Amino acid sequence: MTRDHPPTPPYYAVIFSNTHTGADETDYAQTAAQMEALAKTMPGYLGFESARNEDGFGIAVSYWDSEEAIANWKHHAEHREARKRGRDHWYSDYIVRVAKVERAYRMNAKSTG
Amino acid sequence: MTRDHPPTPPYYAVIFSNTHTGADETDYAQTAAQMEALAKTMPGYLGFESARNEDGFGIAVSYWDSEEAIANWKHHAEHREARKRGRDHWYSDYIVRVAKVERAYRMNAKSTG
Repeated sequence: MTRDHPPTPPYYAVIFSNTHTGADETDYAQTAAQMEALAKTMPGYLGFESARNEDGFGIAVSYWDSEEAIANWKHHAEHREARKRGRDHWYSDYIVRVAKVERAYRMNAKSTG
Repeated sequence: MTRDHPPTPPYYAVIFSNTHTGADETDYAQTAAQMEALAKTMPGYLGFESARNEDGFGIAVSYWDSEEAIANWKHHAEHREARKRGRDHWYSDYIVRVAKVERAYRMNAKSTG
């Protein structure tokens, strides 16, 4: 979901573009939900958005207040284990990009009449 | 689609997180395809990825080699007109974030055995 109140930049985005193999979908969905819940408990977490096409291509973006917060999450033991299972089973390819959000614009239909 | 050969950072990403109203889907799809084709002709264009959930939430990310390339595309007349139609008809809300990609990692199943 789009966050209602995104923070004022600068902050960081981790853009995870990936293609699913289609293997172990139930197991994947459970782990993805666990990781999203766990990420929300991490220091510096700002938000999470994800979307997936029917053909298996997906984009997930997590938002963080600092490079340190990203590193801390990257090294969390449960997250490391989940990423390993992702590499071994769930993703045929992916790209992770770490980016610094420099500015943001928002439109909400309610605010524009 | 995930690009096979993403460029070496730094470069820029425009992250467009949006929710569809569901209105004029055929017209939307045609305009989106036209805009993607037009973007590819712009100086500094590096790539484009998009995904959408069945519930209407989507993420589209375009990649550019400079801030100037983003500004140039933003001010293109056809793109301006398409964005206005998006605000008026196709999106109930959206956030645009401009971010500088600082590093990237790639995994391809073929390369990891």
